[in-house]
Amino acid sequence: MKSILSILLITISFLSIAQSEDAPTIKIIFDTELQSGKCYQDLEFLTTKIGARLSGSPQAAKAVEWSRDVLLTVSDSVFLQPVMVPHWVRGQKEIARVTTSKKKRIDFNVCALGNSVGTGPSGVSGSIVEVKNFEDLEALGSKNVKGKIVFFSRPMDPTFIHTFHAYMHAVDQRAYGASKAAKLGAVGVVVRSMGSGIEEYPHTGSLRYDTTVQKIPAIAISTAHAEKLSQLLKEDKDLKFYFETHSEMLDDVLSYNVVGEIKGSEYPEEIILVSGHLDSWDLGQGAHDDGAGCVQAIEVLRIMKLMGFKPKHTIRAVMYMNEENGLRGGDEYARLSVVNNEKHIAAIESDEGGFAPRGFNMEAEASVRAKIKSWKDLLEPYGLTEFDLEGGGADIGPLGPQGVPLIGYMPDSQRYFSYHHTVEDTFDKVNKRELELGAASMTALVYLIDKYRLK
Amino acid sequence: MKSILSILLITISFLSIAQSEDAPTIKIIFDTELQSGKCYQDLEFLTTKIGARLSGSPQAAKAVEWSRDVLLTVSDSVFLQPVMVPHWVRGQKEIARVTTSKKKRIDFNVCALGNSVGTGPSGVSGSIVEVKNFEDLEALGSKNVKGKIVFFSRPMDPTFIHTFHAYMHAVDQRAYGASKAAKLGAVGVVVRSMGSGIEEYPHTGSLRYDTTVQKIPAIAISTAHAEKLSQLLKEDKDLKFYFETHSEMLDDVLSYNVVGEIKGSEYPEEIILVSGHLDSWDLGQGAHDDGAGCVQAIEVLRIMKLMGFKPKHTIRAVMYMNEENGLRGGDEYARLSVVNNEKHIAAIESDEGGFAPRGFNMEAEASVRAKIKSWKDLLEPYGLTEFDLEGGGADIGPLGPQGVPLIGYMPDSQRYFSYHHTVEDTFDKVNKRELELGAASMTALVYLIDKYRLK
Repeated sequence: MKSILSILLITISFLSIAQSEDAPTIKIIFDTELQSGKCYQDLEFLTTKIGARLSGSPQAAKAVEWSRDVLLTVSDSVFLQPVMVPHWVRGQKEIARVTTSKKKRIDFNVCALGNSVGTGPSGVSGSIVEVKNFEDLEALGSKNVKGKIVFFSRPMDPTFIHTFHAYMHAVDQRAYGASKAAKLGAVGVVVRSMGSGIEEYPHTGSLRYDTTVQKIPAIAISTAHAEKLSQLLKEDKDLKFYFETHSEMLDDVLSYNVVGEIKGSEYPEEIILVSGHLDSWDLGQGAHDDGAGCVQAIEVLRIMKLMGFKPKHTIRAVMYMNEENGLRGGDEYARLSVVNNEKHIAAIESDEGGFAPRGFNMEAEASVRAKIKSWKDLLEPYGLTEFDLEGGGADIGPLGPQGVPLIGYMPDSQRYFSYHHTVEDTFDKVNKRELELGAASMTALVYLIDKYRLK
Repeated sequence: MKSILSILLITISFLSIAQSEDAPTIKIIFDTELQSGKCYQDLEFLTTKIGARLSGSPQAAKAVEWSRDVLLTVSDSVFLQPVMVPHWVRGQKEIARVTTSKKKRIDFNVCALGNSVGTGPSGVSGSIVEVKNFEDLEALGSKNVKGKIVFFSRPMDPTFIHTFHAYMHAVDQRAYGASKAAKLGAVGVVVRSMGSGIEEYPHTGSLRYDTTVQKIPAIAISTAHAEKLSQLLKEDKDLKFYFETHSEMLDDVLSYNVVGEIKGSEYPEEIILVSGHLDSWDLGQGAHDDGAGCVQAIEVLRIMKLMGFKPKHTIRAVMYMNEENGLRGGDEYARLSVVNNEKHIAAIESDEGGFAPRGFNMEAEASVRAKIKSWKDLLEPYGLTEFDLEGGGADIGPLGPQGVPLIGYMPDSQRYFSYHHTVEDTFDKVNKRELELGAASMTALVYLIDKYRLK
């Protein structure tokens, strides 16, 4: 008994000596960022000078150039990974309205869902059936759906404290609703926006067509107008719905992931990856989604440079392309990493907005999770207290099968789904300190992984 | 040894039975608020229909009427506590400018500090000396200060993670700068705004005159213009500064604290107090400071009513008057509580903004702090993880000498000092979910105090 205790005490005391540097170093990381950070001005440029940057757009190409230039100022080397990406365009502004049985016309705020086919100038019209979920839809059957427009109206559940959980429980309507409805003969789909609140503006986002059924056009309707439409349907069974969209999927376009790195002094072949995605939806400016994640990933390298910190492992910042409507960048990065026999010891993504820190979520084995959690005392002073949720990030996901621990930076989630995929996702919604605290949080985690490894 | 263990286990098991209801009850509190809360629409009315409501103003009187009416819908009884409050008015818009040695005129964004005397139409002019703190000022001495305008330019330190700490380390300049400078013969004072960022708009806030020295006029300058002024002073030693303010302290006005309560079923004479302050600065709409706190305190009663929850102790919601420039409401409430021999078992204030929950700060004995901390597991799922900071609230402070545990609701602090005391403290800066989570957090704490008491 005594000898085990002694060993334990000796171990603890060794650990204490090593760890005694950690709190001061992490304080230097945060001080450096809060005094000398540049990620907020990077974000201002990316969002207000370049703006929205959907895959395949000229703005996405500009964002590639811009991020390469910025990464050159903070990296040992920068390279591009070519990747063919889908090129979906919205076309002219969408129209949607109902005509009541008394011939009154009421307009709605809508937008085409990403990847949706357009209706063209003749639009789609028909009577409209409201369902809350796929079970409701199946119960209606093709006799009640054929030739009609299906309205998926299930709201995000406000009682989930972490809003991403509410999103995950509602987003099936947007992702799969069109094909589910098409299977029963529907001619179009209207989906209640994935928004936390009651807002006038719609939220776009991608749908995925089942290639075995007809592609029918789909739109998102603002949450305020979804409520209004539900109400109208209660009062008037003979509503006619009309909508018109001009979206189109063009030919794939050559684009790039942009990668900058600081070479490791001891284990240059082992990579700690930090990332965000460069592409954004065409509405708004892609500020929280995911300009914030990009400038934070760049900032991890910048903070290390400002501190004169030499990592033992290679620290790589990746600006992924095409997270929003294809994930081609994430897939290609993972494919090349196998081809090139690269070893990633951790992959971190920031893609939940530039809000104040709450913690890190993970897709990793229990021992890795426990190791990160053992750093809680070091991270808690900066608001990082939550390490138990599942997560990671869409772009880093394809690295999972290689056994790479996947980690998502997790900011406060309350405001995210007020802006996500809308005209409101603009630079002015980002708070400078919150953005900087996120960048410093990621740097602190990278510092700890670089020092102690995860396994 | 065995018997102690047994007792311990029995105690733990009893505690578990009692506490097993707590997590579900707290979930009902949050669900009720997130599904049926009304505090956001209360705040919309208070801030956009009534607006800014400085003590003594017609809007402050309207806010008294409004809060009485709203409290009547959620309370067993409502009463007003008369209190005479100061009546300071800003008057017409302030002017400030420098004239350089080359006769170039440059205008600055400024506002009179609350309670400051005005300059009147002739203004104040003179050369300007910059200091970072009172030590600098003393070192200059009266020979370098007499007849001049003193510019206090120390910024809030960005490296404090909790922004209130940065505020506390900078606000002496605003509170005492005028009298400190007047003692050395200064004719006016310019203070860098208490703002976290670089902003174009100034932050007002009260100063306190030392009654033994001449009252000289004082203004806040926006942080952006404070930086500009510092730069100009480096380049040109012969700057002339001019400012003109029309503020005035009028006669005291009769106003009120507004109090609503739900009577306790077992200990009606023992009070758990929840509060905010009704008055706000005249710039902006007093949304985060402290409309949010008022509607959250009202909401505590409303949630209990919606849940059909009957508290054992009396739950009292207090809308204090005159926190911003006198604290007369807080003082009077505490005085009457002694006169009426009232017993408060806890006093809670929300006056740090309507942002996402982080925890509770306290001014209480160690055993009380430990008791609240023992509820951490119940509160953590809602983002309430921080219980170690000192705090409470200005209005409840005067209850401290009676031995009442003082507790401050502590939301995330990162955005607060972007809006505090400015034209930007408006309704649109408040997020509905964040506001509601704060109201539910306070209700959960009241539920636990009501059930277990603090001592």
